[in-house]
Amino acid sequence: MSDAFLSRLPAGLSVLSDTASLTRYSTDASGLRTGTPLLVARPATVAQVAALVTLCAEENRKITIAGGGSGLAGGAAPDDGDVVLSLELLNQIEEIDEAGGTALVQAGVVLETLCAAVEEKGWYFPLDLGARGSCQIGGNVATNAGGNRVLRYGTTRQLVLGLEVVLPDGTIMTMLDRTLKNNTGLDIKQLFIGTEGTLGIITRVVVRLFPRPQARRSALVGLASFAQIAPLLKAARSALPELSSFEVMWDNYVAAAAKVKGKPVPFEGVWPLTVLLETEGADTPMFHAGFDAFLESILENDTVQDAIVPQSLEQAADLWAIRDGIGALFPSLRPFVAFDIGIPLKDMGAFIEQTMAELNARWPYAGNLLFGHLGDGNLHLTTGHLHEADIVPVEEAIYALTCRFNGSISAEHGIGRLKKPFLHYSRDDTQRQVMQRIRQALNPQGLVNAARIID
Amino acid sequence: MSDAFLSRLPAGLSVLSDTASLTRYSTDASGLRTGTPLLVARPATVAQVAALVTLCAEENRKITIAGGGSGLAGGAAPDDGDVVLSLELLNQIEEIDEAGGTALVQAGVVLETLCAAVEEKGWYFPLDLGARGSCQIGGNVATNAGGNRVLRYGTTRQLVLGLEVVLPDGTIMTMLDRTLKNNTGLDIKQLFIGTEGTLGIITRVVVRLFPRPQARRSALVGLASFAQIAPLLKAARSALPELSSFEVMWDNYVAAAAKVKGKPVPFEGVWPLTVLLETEGADTPMFHAGFDAFLESILENDTVQDAIVPQSLEQAADLWAIRDGIGALFPSLRPFVAFDIGIPLKDMGAFIEQTMAELNARWPYAGNLLFGHLGDGNLHLTTGHLHEADIVPVEEAIYALTCRFNGSISAEHGIGRLKKPFLHYSRDDTQRQVMQRIRQALNPQGLVNAARIID
Ligand SMILES: Cc1cc2nc3c(=O)[nH]c(=O)nc-3n(C[C@H](O)[C@H](O)[C@H](O)COP(=O)(O)OP(=O)(O)OC[C@H]3O[C@@H](n4cnc5c(N)ncnc54)[C@H](O)[C@@H]3O)c2cc1C
Ligand SMILES: Cc1cc2nc3c(=O)[nH]c(=O)nc-3n(C[C@H](O)[C@H](O)[C@H](O)COP(=O)(O)OP(=O)(O)OC[C@H]3O[C@@H](n4cnc5c(N)ncnc54)[C@H](O)[C@@H]3O)c2cc1C
Repeated sequence: MSDAFLSRLPAGLSVLSDTASLTRYSTDASGLRTGTPLLVARPATVAQVAALVTLCAEENRKITIAGGGSGLAGGAAPDDGDVVLSLELLNQIEEIDEAGGTALVQAGVVLETLCAAVEEKGWYFPLDLGARGSCQIGGNVATNAGGNRVLRYGTTRQLVLGLEVVLPDGTIMTMLDRTLKNNTGLDIKQLFIGTEGTLGIITRVVVRLFPRPQARRSALVGLASFAQIAPLLKAARSALPELSSFEVMWDNYVAAAAKVKGKPVPFEGVWPLTVLLETEGADTPMFHAGFDAFLESILENDTVQDAIVPQSLEQAADLWAIRDGIGALFPSLRPFVAFDIGIPLKDMGAFIEQTMAELNARWPYAGNLLFGHLGDGNLHLTTGHLHEADIVPVEEAIYALTCRFNGSISAEHGIGRLKKPFLHYSRDDTQRQVMQRIRQALNPQGLVNAARIID
Repeated sequence: MSDAFLSRLPAGLSVLSDTASLTRYSTDASGLRTGTPLLVARPATVAQVAALVTLCAEENRKITIAGGGSGLAGGAAPDDGDVVLSLELLNQIEEIDEAGGTALVQAGVVLETLCAAVEEKGWYFPLDLGARGSCQIGGNVATNAGGNRVLRYGTTRQLVLGLEVVLPDGTIMTMLDRTLKNNTGLDIKQLFIGTEGTLGIITRVVVRLFPRPQARRSALVGLASFAQIAPLLKAARSALPELSSFEVMWDNYVAAAAKVKGKPVPFEGVWPLTVLLETEGADTPMFHAGFDAFLESILENDTVQDAIVPQSLEQAADLWAIRDGIGALFPSLRPFVAFDIGIPLKDMGAFIEQTMAELNARWPYAGNLLFGHLGDGNLHLTTGHLHEADIVPVEEAIYALTCRFNGSISAEHGIGRLKKPFLHYSRDDTQRQVMQRIRQALNPQGLVNAARIID
């Protein structure tokens, strides 16, 4: 341990340096381990964050920012000797504005905690993802998290009104806007949303709230072919302004997920494609009648072939259990690659066809499961039962195809450390140079979250 | 004229240099004139834009970018000797994707033209503002235009999926994404949205489309006090997911606008506040019943005191004519200042009270009209019948108050040249330094749209 550095740590700062803690903070949900940190610092105030960052800048000490550790890109994994800056104690909900519908929260607040607190006041924060119980709002902002309701409410980027950031030199930059619109020059907060901590540390966030929905309706529909997806999506968006989810699952995914979750296979596996639709709205006769009328119409005019309408909250939860079943499937798929790809909807059919053809030809023993937030052009493909040596060639093959279809190699999870070698498939030389110029302008020493996204 | 420079202009480039043209391109809708350009170049291809920008970089020649000229911040007004780069001939709609709901358009396409073209294909581009017939999509992106439907669809920032930009050194950067989500590092397009051309020239845009609404319902409601606004907004957002407009007007604005437009004064001026609500949705019995039930409920429980429900498209247009009447009022108000302020809704009442007290005390002869997109926290205050010498003191007073309420001195129109002296009221030293560092990183010679936003 570096005694000179330790002696200068801000007074009152919570510091962990026992082996168990250092090990615990050595990775994120991706499982990647790159080194062992010097210590874990857990500031409880913004001033402590600033003092720590200033010290690290002076002492030329690298920082790895740790949110909830649910990231899937290896971004929260430190190098040997890093200071891990964990936001977990900076976890107060400072204000819920019940008139205007905004909340001011510290970065370390866990997403689920925030959602529950605002619901108690009759408001709603619509961000929702499987990691809701562990991910932090700061991590959500740093990764521009998407999740289950992007179609209606947008990604985290659209839900953030204001931010406070500690810059890599220790300066606190406070931009805690509470209005939807602010056109006074560069929208600086956009720089920090989705850049995975490479430009600074997010310390506080103002989020936009929505009135709490009083009712929710869902249905599972069966389709005979992929060509029906785009017309169904358009029809649903037209008829249901409250449409919040449009989750597509392929038959072998449905079968595997139902099995692992101990649920019956919907439609007994007759339809190659299944879509989970969900709406959120007012608990009025019109809301329910509108949803029922829509289902009737798409069945009548053959936009879909079949529909299951849950009759209770438990039945609805069963449908979501299948949609969320991928986590439970992972263990049986190892070694696997979990892709999180963006492809324009119009090209999605062709992309999937070519991808499957290539996978079947080159890795016939692989198990491929497909599902996704297709309403957002976001496909999750999991390719499992691989040999370790297959992983990089599989990634190369799929990302090269993604590039050919002008897609994005990460629609949700970010680049972090794991996808860095493939960034060029989604970002050309000019774009990578612009990213580097911006990083150089704001993080010139390169000490904060080094070696993420791009070198 | 500079002959060396002229001889190097790209072959085939349309150039105007007659006095009438130079005068015509010397200002924008704000009326500010800062100089006479050397010439007006009107590239018709992206390659011509790039060649021209490269030439200007080599010859150290300043560029002013001209979109539709409807900007209200003096941003399109050139200095003496500038090259005006007008996008008006780069005006093709290159693609409307009817399956996925996206459009790829060149920057010079006029907003109204784009809207009409996509509506013909059963889609909808929801951006709408008074300048729809002259403003260009490139200008909308450069200013992050807001308008009448931000509450539901967001500002231009939320409607842009992809961008192409010519950087100040002439490099073409193409990021024509067609998906809602792309988390591959810094979202570079955000840098160009709302920075009023200070980082480069927008040449092409991919926008997000929505299914074309089949029905629209509106109502004008009368309220006895400002305290009722926030509860009404929350009730409307809860009950009407299709709510697209929430426009608040104060009584003297309604009276003046109705008079100048030759319409009867709604509610005969009994209520101090009037709100124009509008929803867009499917033409189903449920849609109409939902709207009617909502109106009934807010009348019954005294959320509002009175309501006017138009019985025809013409009657609805009359209501919007009053809302849009400000343009027709301007001539009678000269000299005036038109403020475009963002204030958190919870503080809006107090802000208005203090503002009115200060204006009445210091400029008792001023005529003050108030209305705004209150659903977005955006207030338009027009202070007229001033003396020329009052203008800067009035601006100073109102922007200082805006700052005290953590507001934004421009919610919509941007900073350009006119609001540059007041930027510090919304952006502190740290934020202005970050803006400068980013500008330095991407526009180091400072030749493109110099002296806008910040020096
Ligand atoms: C079961 C499961 C389901 C998931 N589902 C989704 C999904 O549907 N959609 C989706 O988008 N993602 C999903 N994820 C990924 C993950 O939950 C998100 O990326 C989440 O936003 C990460 O938040 P975190 O606090 O856990 O961040 P961490 O994992 O701690 O960190 C992620 C990155 O952000 C940086 N960072 C963290 N906090 C800050 C801060 N305060 N300031 C600056 N940088 C910071 C870290 O250094 C790291 O680079 C899922 C993950 C799991 C395990
Ligand atoms: C009657 C009226 C009503 C209005 N209502 C609204 C409203 O409701 N909401 C709102 O937000 N605005 C409103 N405005 C302001 C204005 O219409 C918007 O700012 C509009 O987006 C400007 O577009 P434009 O093409 O006319 O841009 P211009 O006026 O030509 O330019 C505006 C700025 O953007 C730059 N620019 C233009 N094109 C490009 C490009 N391709 N690349 C890079 N930079 C470029 C210019 O250099 C300038 O700095 C209104 C204006 C009028 C006259």
